[in-house]
Amino acid sequence: MITGYAVFEAGGELRPYEYDPGPLGSHQVEIAVEYCGLCHSDLSMINNDWGVSQYPFIPGHEAVGRIAATGDLVTQFAVGDIVGLGWQSGFCHTCECCMNGDHNLCYAVEETIVGRHGGFADRVRAEASSVIAIPAAIPMEQAGPLFCAGVTTFNPLMQQQLSPTARVAVIGIGGLGHLALQFLKAWGCEVTAFTSSPDKADEARRFGAHEIINSRDSAALKEAKNRFDLIISTVNVKLEWRRYIATLKPKGKLVLLGVLLEPLDINLIGQRAVMASEVGSPGTIKTMLEFAARHDILPQTEVMPMSEINQALGYLEAGKPRYRIVLQQDFVMFAAEQHGT
Amino acid sequence: MITGYAVFEAGGELRPYEYDPGPLGSHQVEIAVEYCGLCHSDLSMINNDWGVSQYPFIPGHEAVGRIAATGDLVTQFAVGDIVGLGWQSGFCHTCECCMNGDHNLCYAVEETIVGRHGGFADRVRAEASSVIAIPAAIPMEQAGPLFCAGVTTFNPLMQQQLSPTARVAVIGIGGLGHLALQFLKAWGCEVTAFTSSPDKADEARRFGAHEIINSRDSAALKEAKNRFDLIISTVNVKLEWRRYIATLKPKGKLVLLGVLLEPLDINLIGQRAVMASEVGSPGTIKTMLEFAARHDILPQTEVMPMSEINQALGYLEAGKPRYRIVLQQDFVMFAAEQHGT
Repeated sequence: MITGYAVFEAGGELRPYEYDPGPLGSHQVEIAVEYCGLCHSDLSMINNDWGVSQYPFIPGHEAVGRIAATGDLVTQFAVGDIVGLGWQSGFCHTCECCMNGDHNLCYAVEETIVGRHGGFADRVRAEASSVIAIPAAIPMEQAGPLFCAGVTTFNPLMQQQLSPTARVAVIGIGGLGHLALQFLKAWGCEVTAFTSSPDKADEARRFGAHEIINSRDSAALKEAKNRFDLIISTVNVKLEWRRYIATLKPKGKLVLLGVLLEPLDINLIGQRAVMASEVGSPGTIKTMLEFAARHDILPQTEVMPMSEINQALGYLEAGKPRYRIVLQQDFVMFAAEQHGT
Repeated sequence: MITGYAVFEAGGELRPYEYDPGPLGSHQVEIAVEYCGLCHSDLSMINNDWGVSQYPFIPGHEAVGRIAATGDLVTQFAVGDIVGLGWQSGFCHTCECCMNGDHNLCYAVEETIVGRHGGFADRVRAEASSVIAIPAAIPMEQAGPLFCAGVTTFNPLMQQQLSPTARVAVIGIGGLGHLALQFLKAWGCEVTAFTSSPDKADEARRFGAHEIINSRDSAALKEAKNRFDLIISTVNVKLEWRRYIATLKPKGKLVLLGVLLEPLDINLIGQRAVMASEVGSPGTIKTMLEFAARHDILPQTEVMPMSEINQALGYLEAGKPRYRIVLQQDFVMFAAEQHGT
C-alpha cells in the first residue's frame, strides 16, 4: 500500500489516505518520495479550478526521491537512483508529438495528479520515460521545484531558440518567475522583472534582473515601449495584456506560462506574437537540470514537513512563499534530526 | 503637376485631382504609372476605417510603371526601368527594425497613401529603397497586386522559415488568399483552403489547394483537429478564432494578415501561437518577385480603365473581383488599342 495525503472534495482539507497501486507496470518505476514541491497547480487541482479533478486524489507533482522498484522492461534506472517526477507521468510514445520529441504535448499524456495519485505520499509511480535523474550538483531538497516551475520557465527559451542577445522581461516574480530570472541571466540575456510588489525588487536583482519595472507604474510601462524581444508571463490571472504587448519590439513574443481561464482579448500588430507554453519534454527537463547544475541555478525554497501540508497550502494560498514550498517526508526529517543535520 | 483620382471626404467618390509634388527628393524616384492594383486597404483608407486618412488623397498602392525621374543620390535605378511600389514608400534607415532588415516594421515608416498621394495617378513618387524592379518574366499588367497582396501573403513563409513539409491552411480565398495558395503550393507544402464560398473550390484547387474545407461546416472543422502547422488568415473581419485554432497542431501558428479592429478574444494551449504580419520588407518583396517569376505565380486579375475607378470600387465593395482588380492608365489602354493588342 502507498500512504499519502489526499483531498476528498473540491477545496477540502488533505487527510491521510492509503491506496493499493497494484502490480508495477513493465515500463514503470516506483519512487520513494523524500521531497515534493508545492505548486499553485496543486491548489488549482484541489479546488477543481480546471474541472478535471477526480476525488479522492493525492496532489504533488514535484516529487524527488530514490528509485524503489523498476518494471521488468525498465533499463535506464536502478534501485537507489536519485530522480524527480514533474507534472507529466506518462506518454503514448506513438503520436506525432511524442515521435517528434514533444512528449509534453502528447495527445494522450498522463498527468501525475489527474485521475491518479501524486507525490505527497511515501511513494509515487510513473512511467520511467517521464522520470529524470538528478545531477549530483543539485541538492535533493531543492530539486523538486525544477521539475515543474523550472522546466515550465526553461521551455520557452529552448522552444524559441532564444538568443543571448535578447531583451527579455518576466511578469510575476514568484515560484516560476524567480527561476525564469536565473535561467535568463545565465542564458546571457538582458533581464527585466515586471512586478507589482516593489518589495521584491532587491531579490529580483539577486536572481538576475538587470532592471525592475513596477507593473502598476503606467509611465514606466510606456517608457518601455518597443523594448523586449520576449516577455514571459508566469501569472495565471488576466492582465491588461495590451499594456505589456506595447513593450514588445516588432516581432516580439509574449509567452504565457500560466493556465488562463479567461480569453486573452488582445490586438496584435507589427509581427508580434502571443503563444502558450506548458511544462517541457523529458528531454528538455534533462537539459534544464544540466544547465541549472552548471550555472548554480536553484529554487529558493522553504521546507516544511509533509504532515503540515494543510498549513503549507494555506501559506501558498496567501501568496506568502518566498519562493517555493518543498514538503519533506516526515520520516526523512526525523532521520535528519537523528543525525544532527 | 501630377494628375490622379482623389477622395475628398470619408466614403466619397473619387474625382480628378492635381497636385504639385515639389522638387524630387535626392533619394526619391518618380514612377510613370501604367497599372495600379486595387486593394481592400484602399477602400479602408477611403472610408477612414483606421482613422488615419487625410483628405484629399489619391489612393492606390500597387503601382507599376517606368522610372520617369531619379533623385540625385539614386544609383540603383535609371529612367525607363520597370518597377513597382507597394504599401510602404519610405523608411527611416536608422531604427533597429530598418537596421535589421525589417524595414516594413520601421518606427517611422512612410505609407504610400497615408498623408500623401498614391498610385491612381499618372505619376507617383517614393523613396528609391521602397521601389523594386520587376523581373522580365512578370507581365506589367499583372505585377501590381504582388506588391501588396503578394508580399503580404509571402512574408509569413519567410518569417516563419516555413518548412516545405508543413501542412498549411489559408482562410479566405480572395485577392490575398489566391496568391497564398500559389506560394504555398510552390513552396512544397500540403495546402488546404478554408472558404465559406464552396463555389470557389475548383478555383482554389487550381491555385494549389490540395483540399478544401467549407468553413461553415462544423463537422469538417472538427475533423481537422490538430492538423495544421500554420494557418494564414487573409480576412479582416472577426471570425470564431477558437474553431480555427483547434485545427492547429500543438506548436502550430495562426498568422493574421488582415488588420483587425476587434480584439481577438482567444485562448491558447499546447504551445500554439497567434501572430500578426504586415506586408514585407523591400528585401522580401524582391525575393517574392524572384520566387513568383520562377514558379509562374501571378495574380488572377481583372483589368479596368483607371477612369472607371468608382465603378471598380463598387465592384470591390460588393466582393465580386476574381481575384484582383488592376486599374490601367487610360493613356496606356488607348496606346494598346492603337497597336491592335
